[in-house]
Amino acid sequence: MTPATTSDFLAAERLRSERENQSAAGRPAASLAAMARDERGASNRGASQHGVTPQSEDFSAWYNELVFKAELVDRGPVRGTMVIRPYGYRLWELLQSDLDRRIKETGHVNAYFPLLIPESYMKREAEHIEGFAPELAVVTHAGGKDLDEPLIIRPSSETIIGEVMSRWISSHRDLPMLLNQWANVVRWELRPRMLLRTTEFLWQEGHTAHANADEAMTETMLALEFYRALAVDTAVMPVIAGEKTPGERFAGAERTFTIEAMMRDGRALQAGTSHFMGTNFARAFNIQYTAQNDEVTLCHTTSWGMSSRMIGGVIMTHGDDTGLVLPPNLAPFQVVIVPIGRGEQEAAVLAAADELAGRLRRKDVRVHVDDRTHLSPGFKFNDWELRGVPIRLELGPRDLEAGTVLMARRLNYYPQASGGDRPAKEPLSLDSAVARLSFELAAFQEMVLRRATDFRDERLVRTDTWADFVAAVAVGWALALHCGDQACEDEIKAETTATARCIPLDGEPESGPCVRCGRPSAYGQRVVFGRSY
Amino acid sequence: MTPATTSDFLAAERLRSERENQSAAGRPAASLAAMARDERGASNRGASQHGVTPQSEDFSAWYNELVFKAELVDRGPVRGTMVIRPYGYRLWELLQSDLDRRIKETGHVNAYFPLLIPESYMKREAEHIEGFAPELAVVTHAGGKDLDEPLIIRPSSETIIGEVMSRWISSHRDLPMLLNQWANVVRWELRPRMLLRTTEFLWQEGHTAHANADEAMTETMLALEFYRALAVDTAVMPVIAGEKTPGERFAGAERTFTIEAMMRDGRALQAGTSHFMGTNFARAFNIQYTAQNDEVTLCHTTSWGMSSRMIGGVIMTHGDDTGLVLPPNLAPFQVVIVPIGRGEQEAAVLAAADELAGRLRRKDVRVHVDDRTHLSPGFKFNDWELRGVPIRLELGPRDLEAGTVLMARRLNYYPQASGGDRPAKEPLSLDSAVARLSFELAAFQEMVLRRATDFRDERLVRTDTWADFVAAVAVGWALALHCGDQACEDEIKAETTATARCIPLDGEPESGPCVRCGRPSAYGQRVVFGRSY
Repeated sequence: MTPATTSDFLAAERLRSERENQSAAGRPAASLAAMARDERGASNRGASQHGVTPQSEDFSAWYNELVFKAELVDRGPVRGTMVIRPYGYRLWELLQSDLDRRIKETGHVNAYFPLLIPESYMKREAEHIEGFAPELAVVTHAGGKDLDEPLIIRPSSETIIGEVMSRWISSHRDLPMLLNQWANVVRWELRPRMLLRTTEFLWQEGHTAHANADEAMTETMLALEFYRALAVDTAVMPVIAGEKTPGERFAGAERTFTIEAMMRDGRALQAGTSHFMGTNFARAFNIQYTAQNDEVTLCHTTSWGMSSRMIGGVIMTHGDDTGLVLPPNLAPFQVVIVPIGRGEQEAAVLAAADELAGRLRRKDVRVHVDDRTHLSPGFKFNDWELRGVPIRLELGPRDLEAGTVLMARRLNYYPQASGGDRPAKEPLSLDSAVARLSFELAAFQEMVLRRATDFRDERLVRTDTWADFVAAVAVGWALALHCGDQACEDEIKAETTATARCIPLDGEPESGPCVRCGRPSAYGQRVVFGRSY
Repeated sequence: MTPATTSDFLAAERLRSERENQSAAGRPAASLAAMARDERGASNRGASQHGVTPQSEDFSAWYNELVFKAELVDRGPVRGTMVIRPYGYRLWELLQSDLDRRIKETGHVNAYFPLLIPESYMKREAEHIEGFAPELAVVTHAGGKDLDEPLIIRPSSETIIGEVMSRWISSHRDLPMLLNQWANVVRWELRPRMLLRTTEFLWQEGHTAHANADEAMTETMLALEFYRALAVDTAVMPVIAGEKTPGERFAGAERTFTIEAMMRDGRALQAGTSHFMGTNFARAFNIQYTAQNDEVTLCHTTSWGMSSRMIGGVIMTHGDDTGLVLPPNLAPFQVVIVPIGRGEQEAAVLAAADELAGRLRRKDVRVHVDDRTHLSPGFKFNDWELRGVPIRLELGPRDLEAGTVLMARRLNYYPQASGGDRPAKEPLSLDSAVARLSFELAAFQEMVLRRATDFRDERLVRTDTWADFVAAVAVGWALALHCGDQACEDEIKAETTATARCIPLDGEPESGPCVRCGRPSAYGQRVVFGRSY
């Protein structure tokens, strides 16, 4: 090879500009095309990828196979670690940008704190270290030497951020301090599961300090509201927001709030949590301020987190035997166009597909033209169904002649009340396709929300007897009165594997005997119980 | 405290909506206001923050003090680690979004690979482990047990991505594979320096695999071009792009390319590198594909990285005795408005400031109104100068009466040829301020580029004698012919501390005696030498 010269540099420049022009001219945005190519590969590996164990047969096998076959993730070399593949990472980026906007709009700012935490910091808050001790990964050796003090890879950053906050806060004028960071964390998992429980995962962790308990409590609820809105509006998971019972609290928190989503096997997934710490961490790390009356006062702090496990929640909330079902707001490709045509028809069909894609792209629809030439249309249909693309458009020479394109929805869920299912495929006029597809994407988003909500509502049962409770948590959730005693919760878990998921925020006042032990109920309302991930 | 109820939830919802409305009504976007508040604090701590050792007196002290006083970073508890504070992190987000766009536009896709790499992976490429061995942080204990195999916290991800790529690539149709990840890495630093050389830093690392050497070489240069454009257009660092001499290559690379920027003390900062790996990593990790002719062939791979050290480069390229100077394209606040007025005038002035800010914001100007009431205008002026805000607007009752606002530029660099310096402060008409400020921001961006380029060009000297060479590298860079012998490079370094920075891509063909030893020159052109960070 000759040495690199200016002309190599200019060649690279030309390449860049060509790729940009291509994309500007209405060809698929290069990065999306590459996501399809790099991810699926164009090789024949794909041929065996459509067989996934049916969801109805073995939910767990279905999930474990699907996350790999849809190329969302791959295994990392260390047990319990994962590679987030481009298609999966794009889901994360879409969740991220949505949540980051909500976080910033409400006055929080992003920062970045170190990965490595001195062991002594972790030990300062007693419940915190007790909760995390079994899951820690420890660096004992660095730069060719044994370290004097072992370093913990952050499992969560309350301790290190607490220590730094104590330096940054001195006056009431420094409050509230509203910080957030996007980061990786490590928690050694005994029973790892891709996306849901991995040794390393990606998340966002908010950490805030306030002048008093009321403000910290308002913040705790504000963060929970971010997660509820993100789950419902973007991930389309109809969650129940509520408070954890004491036994289910975060290590070191005074109160923990959660959003709980129901998966299609009836289990609960905790999809985001928000913690009111009281003064626990402020005391451990000396986070205090001088108030207007000159009194030195401890801050009240909060922390809250949403992680890459939400991707797992989306898969298990919407997916079916055919594969993923992605809500349009979160789908990397909302529409995929499959041009059909060989020989001399190929160019005309491809041009029409590109032209339509260009018009959709100008309306901010995430569209991809599947122009792979060595794969059959049928293979491509299966492929994009497996990958959960909401709307597929098939465009062949006869469609082109008729001025139409054939639309296939990934899902048809129209209960009888709304007239029942629509036809599986439907021709659209090419001329008006853009307006129609904008409508169809919105309708699809609504449809998956309705479907998930109906599913959840059917399996969320008010139970007043133990027999009903056991039956309910076998297939879904029970809404039951409970005595609030930890030993009783433990017994319920031992017999049914169900745990208290949350005390719903919108629960009606109610009291009576505990569904398990008959003692008087606590909490003044019903509690959601269910088996969980 | 009473239990959280729906009404708490609704209160949080109201708070969110109030904050949003506030921001929509033309008050500073909440997150920016918070960045100012959380970062500077409103306490009196600020009062001592304006004294920074002059740059001209002690460049190194100036830098070390400024990064803390401008609240870009703070020290982490572990030696050599840093906290990136909100003001510094915002710079990173702006660099990130610019580069991410360039990366995606050219067909690359983001993914995420595990933090922890088995030690055995690191050892598979001999030069790679040799280069990194002294800098590794090692996890030996996790989940309460000693690990069978030590795990390395990634110092760079060639090995783990190489291993995964070998699973993903089988056919020529899978190529090119164009991956990128945004991540943290750990390299144990003996002489840490905030942002420039820290034990943990944030970066982006591209990893690509190609069918042949030419395509991999084109990719290597394309990535270098991302960095050049990012540096020049956004960070406004007039870099020289070139190839590293063999002794300065990345561990395991066949060829390494770099962009080199000159800091205001004449030293060089390597601000981004792009590596052509040949088949080194493909051989070590078995990354191969079946070509169209059915031959199994090794891939050619590349990797390329840009890190949070570029923030340090921006500081040292533009900063002066007064503090930071931020190019408008990268400034978190491009314009800061300081309302001046006490008592009954306060409200009118603040309202006018907000109104102007609203108009600027609608033109996508990042503007902040400094409405802190307990600080004097003079304090605020110093404060925003220290923090490098390009344009400050002062708005008092008399300005308001005259329908003007007083503009102060952070920097006036107008060489005689363009008519010399402009006045330090200049009144603008409030009515036409938006159009004028858009122009001023563009002019400011141009001015800092011209200033940095003039500075660099003055200190980049063609030297043909050893005496001239020594003089040149004492204050800047030497362009010199060199024999290409490593021992000769080592001698130069021992005598002057200068190293070969790069062989410029746009160098004119030239040959002659080596500036140091007189033997015939290598490379067919001059090499840039300089002291470096």
